[in-house]
Formats: sequence, C-alpha cells, structure tokens
Amino acid sequence: MHYLDNAATTSVCPEAAARAEEVLREQFGNPSSLYDLGVRAEKTLSAARAAVAKALGAKPSEVYFTASGTESNNIALLGAARARKAWGDCIVTTAYEHPSVQNTLRELRTEGFRLIEVKPVAGEIRPEDMLAQVDGKTALVAAMRVNNETGAMIDVAALAAGVKSINRRTAVHCDGVQSFLKEPAPLGQIDTMAVSGHKIHAPKGVGALYVRTGFNLKQVLFGGGQERGIRPGTENVAFAAAMAAAVEAAGDTAAARARVQELNLRLRRELETFQNVRINSPGSASPYILNFSFLGYRSETVLHLLESRGVYVSGGSACSKGQRSHTLTAMGLTDQEVDGGIRVSFCSGSGDEDLDALLEGLREAGKTLMRAYR
Amino acid sequence: MHYLDNAATTSVCPEAAARAEEVLREQFGNPSSLYDLGVRAEKTLSAARAAVAKALGAKPSEVYFTASGTESNNIALLGAARARKAWGDCIVTTAYEHPSVQNTLRELRTEGFRLIEVKPVAGEIRPEDMLAQVDGKTALVAAMRVNNETGAMIDVAALAAGVKSINRRTAVHCDGVQSFLKEPAPLGQIDTMAVSGHKIHAPKGVGALYVRTGFNLKQVLFGGGQERGIRPGTENVAFAAAMAAAVEAAGDTAAARARVQELNLRLRRELETFQNVRINSPGSASPYILNFSFLGYRSETVLHLLESRGVYVSGGSACSKGQRSHTLTAMGLTDQEVDGGIRVSFCSGSGDEDLDALLEGLREAGKTLMRAYR
Repeated sequence: MHYLDNAATTSVCPEAAARAEEVLREQFGNPSSLYDLGVRAEKTLSAARAAVAKALGAKPSEVYFTASGTESNNIALLGAARARKAWGDCIVTTAYEHPSVQNTLRELRTEGFRLIEVKPVAGEIRPEDMLAQVDGKTALVAAMRVNNETGAMIDVAALAAGVKSINRRTAVHCDGVQSFLKEPAPLGQIDTMAVSGHKIHAPKGVGALYVRTGFNLKQVLFGGGQERGIRPGTENVAFAAAMAAAVEAAGDTAAARARVQELNLRLRRELETFQNVRINSPGSASPYILNFSFLGYRSETVLHLLESRGVYVSGGSACSKGQRSHTLTAMGLTDQEVDGGIRVSFCSGSGDEDLDALLEGLREAGKTLMRAYR
Repeated sequence: MHYLDNAATTSVCPEAAARAEEVLREQFGNPSSLYDLGVRAEKTLSAARAAVAKALGAKPSEVYFTASGTESNNIALLGAARARKAWGDCIVTTAYEHPSVQNTLRELRTEGFRLIEVKPVAGEIRPEDMLAQVDGKTALVAAMRVNNETGAMIDVAALAAGVKSINRRTAVHCDGVQSFLKEPAPLGQIDTMAVSGHKIHAPKGVGALYVRTGFNLKQVLFGGGQERGIRPGTENVAFAAAMAAAVEAAGDTAAARARVQELNLRLRRELETFQNVRINSPGSASPYILNFSFLGYRSETVLHLLESRGVYVSGGSACSKGQRSHTLTAMGLTDQEVDGGIRVSFCSGSGDEDLDALLEGLREAGKTLMRAYR
C-alpha cells in the first residue's frame, strides 16, 4: 500500500493505539469522580494536556480537548464572534478555508455579521489583503496556517500582530489542523488555534483547542463543567492520551519535514516532465501537500486507476465528499483544471517507493485512460 | 473492587475494547474518502449505526453519532428550539435535568425563550404538571427518562403523546442517557433522544442522537457534511463500532434488569434496618439507581471510607464535581439530607458480593466516622 492521502487522515501510530488500548482496558474512571479511579483518569488527562500544550508552545491551562478539529473551529469561531457582537459587526477570513471554518462563518453571517472572504492571488493569501479589511468594528479574523488542499501557507503570527495593531479587541483564530507538528507555528498574538488528532497519527475522534489565557470566548455547548466549561461532556480520556502519545512519537519534526521536503521536490521535478500536468501548490507551500491538475482527465478516473495499483491520493479534500474543490475554484482555475485536481499528501513515513508507485500509476493513466477533455 | 457507580461511568466491556482496537489498528480510512479504505470505514460506521438504531427501535437513518450524551443533548435542544423561534417562545422541562440539558435550556433563556422548570412531587415528575404548561407557543418540551441521581422515571412516551395532542409543532426531547439498554423506552412520538456510550460499557467519547424522520432541527455545529450535517467532523469510527459492540454484548436486557431489580430490593430492605438512612429514590424508580441519605454524616466522608474498602459509589453525580446535588435540592430535601446523599448505581454485572461489601462499609462508617450533624 502506498498511502499518500495523509491530509485526509493518517494511520494510527502504534504508540497511540497502544496507549488508547491501555486506557480503555485499565482506566475506566470518570475524571470528575472524586475517588482514586477518577483521580487516576484525571491525571492521565492532565498529562495528555501537558504533552499537547508543549507541542503547541502553550501552557497546559490554555489547551482544551475536543472531539475534532471541526469542533475546535466551531467553539473558537462561534464563541469569539458572539462574545464581540456588542461592538463588532464584521468577520474577515480567506476564500479557501476548510468547511468547518467557512460554513461556521457563513452561519455567523445569518446572525448579523458581515463576512469578508479574501481571495488568494497566485494561490496565496496575502496578509496585507486581509489587514486592509480590518477596522475598529472587526470582531474576528480567521485564517488557516496551511491550506488542506494545496498546502499554501499564511504567516498567521504576522497576520495576528498586524490585526492587533489595528484593533486590539479583534479575535484572531487560526485553523492549525494541517500545520500541527509539520510547520513551525509560533502562536504569537493568535488567540485561538484548532488542531486535530487524526491528522497526526492519533485516532479520529479527538482534537484540541488552544485558547490564550484571558481570552473572552462565549460558550457554544453547555453541560457539566468539563474542560472548564469550554467543552462540556465526559472527557475522552483514552483518545486524549492517544493524541499525546502520537505527539510524543512524532519525534524530531524538523528532520521529518526536511525529508518530506526532499520527496516533495522530487515529485515536483518528475511532474514537470509530464506534458499535461499543472502544479497548483505555490512554491512556498508546506512540503506535506502537493496539488496538481492532471489535465484532460477527471481526477476520479485517475484516482481509481491509482487505487487499483495500491496508491491512495485524493481529488480535493475528503471533507467535501464528491463536491468540487472550493480551494481550486477560489484560486480561479478553469473547470478542466479543477476537475483534474489531485492532492498528494505525505507523512513522515512516506518514502521514495511511494513516489515511484504514484509516478508509474500516473504514466499508466496517461497511456490507458479515456480523456474527458481534448 | 466493588464498583457501584455505573451511573457515573462504566468499565469498557471486552467486546467494545476489542472492537475499538481492531478498528484503530486495521481500519484508518476516512469514511468520506472515495477509495476502498474509505468505503470500508464507511461500512463499519453504517453497521454500527444499524446496531444502535435497532437497540433504540429506530431506523438507521434516524441515528447520528456524536462524541457524548452532552453533545447529543446540546444538538437536539439548541437545534429544536432555534428552529421554532419564529412562533414559539416557551420551553417546558423538569427541575432535575442533567446539567447538559438544564444549562443548555438556561442558555436558550438568554436567547429569548421563557423557561418553565417543573418540580418533582415526592421525588417524581408528574407528566400532567408538565402538560399543564404546554400551549400553542411551546417550542420545546424536554424530560429525562431516568433521573441520573435518583433513578426516578418519567413516562416520556405518554408525555410526548400528551404534548402532541396539545401542539403538534412542539418538539419533544428525551435525555435517554440513563435509560438506554436499561428501561424499555418506546420512542412513540418523541422527536429526539440522546444516549451515551460510556454508560453502557462502551468508551467515553461516543454518544448518539435519535432524530425522528422529517423532524426540523437547526444546525448547531458547522463543517463538512458528516452525519448528514447534524454532527460535522470526521467520524470516530473506532468508538462508533465499540458502542455497537457494547450494545450487542448487552444481550438480554430484560433479564439483566430483573437481576438488578433483585439487588435493588435487597439493598432497600437492608438499608431499612439502618436507623439513620432515608431512601430518596421513589419506589417506582429504575432499579439501576438507588439514592439514600446517610443522615448525620457528610457523603464525602462516607465515600472515602467506602473507597478505602474498595467500594465505589458517589454523592450526587460525577458531572457536577463537588457541587451540591441539584436533584435532591429540587426535591426539597433538608441540608442534612442533601449533604448525606449517596448514589449506588448498578450494572448487569453487579452482584450480591458488591452489596455485602457496601453494607459492611456503611455499618463501619456508622460506628467509626465523626458525625457532621447530631
């Protein structure tokens, strides 16, 4: 198997699986219970929180466990905007956010906020284009660190500093799902950041939200006081521990990134030898994602041929099953370019043999598949 | 260990743990991915949905996986009330709901709804007292099937029928967390029902929400189209499968209930021989929960003595860590009665040896502990 769809989801690493299993089998206490079984679960949760906080460059008290990156984005965006509604009437974001940001902000539009979606230029969002929209009534600015379809990056720390210099009260949220453990991401003046477990070899069903100390967030979900009220519901101790195990197992992330950068550069070089390939990822994109259009073919057809050869990649993102890529559309690509879009996404375990299989499959596709466009 | 705090959380049954492990190790595909790995994950999820639906007496298409009973309650209550705001201005509930219902409904009060919290009489909510508050402008009625602190039951199916005969548009929500797999709960005209995995020997971190076909629910969380938009976020396939495994492992729930009823009756009989015990659970309560006040003592002190003997029970519920029992308070108990409140909660695996250990501990407590009240 040559799995090159790590931006959709990753395999659970042995360390995370083992840790989840250990907690499931041996620690079933409710962290809110006052006796030793509960205290032990609470300690497991606290240790997990400390590990994730360390990787985020945050204090443990600034990290809240959630069930997904989507939930983290929802809690941060709805909570930050609603808390600022008394004086703020506008939200500034990019035109290529993940659906869990884009659709949440569009919901806030129905609650009375103006929504400005800044478009990418040559595949990239320019922070100055976003800052030009920020004023004294901007409640919230939201931008992803790494785009999930192309890998395009935004310097969110610089963006946050710029926003705060215009309006100190404006909330700045970062969707860090695709950058966590992959790109250096100093939090700087960012107020909230969402990350997900299943993109970093932890299980599906756990995420985390960074909330800067003292930041004002209106509650979105209500219940017992778990996660200090930010995310009520009995805590998923097993998967919080598994997420921490995955974070710790990631090891030297800079070295992993350098290896992935080599793979990415090789793939770019090889793709340039194809006459019908257009590379959609900017040159400065995260090395973990490379998006290109295999012109003349529908990506589904190419994907199925690759799948039959044990090579897994995707067209667009998994999160918008069957829909057209909204990032490529926002970039202004032609229908043919969007329809032929293919996303290759690496993890630290990806290797040259995976690329070999992918490239062989693409050559085969070019020879044998029926063209959708001429 | 004599674990008698199953209303707080349960141990993960071997079947659920094994199933979670299998999915974690062998099936990491994203259910939204279009290739075989994704399709396989989607099939696992569908099979889990069918199993949970069967246990609920619902169609698979009426069941949505969530991360907890709390999340299920939030999605149903916020979604149902907000969808009816144009014509409805009132919500009717009980005074002893779980915090994930009570606090969610109190939030809706800040959104403009009137909230009527009907009090129990002799520990029980009378459906007629709730129905007396329902009229043409009642947006939502919410009642738990089994109270988490005393086991007191409400005939929610009859309540729903009564509500619908007054106002067909009124939404009826049932918190079924403590009744799922324990009490027969025909859905009848109930619109939405919340259940949780970790109360039925599945892991913490998974729940489900029943939504009647055609029921109008405004979205609460936003993202990709997972769970048909009701609960976005990449699905926790492993724990959905584990929840289904726990449901299937539960076997003959009527036989289990009969065994637990025997234990409950024995405990009631034995407690009646204590001079300082007041039983707080109504006679008709669910057999899985027995609440009593150990008069003259603070429950924390008694709990610690029991814990030292390997017996685990709780004072109040785990969900409101350290706070006074809001159910006992709503029942109008005295301070001494509330402070001495102890909840024993069984599971199908509980046995006479657990009761023996509990009763021995209580006798020891009566002899050796310092009284808080005289």
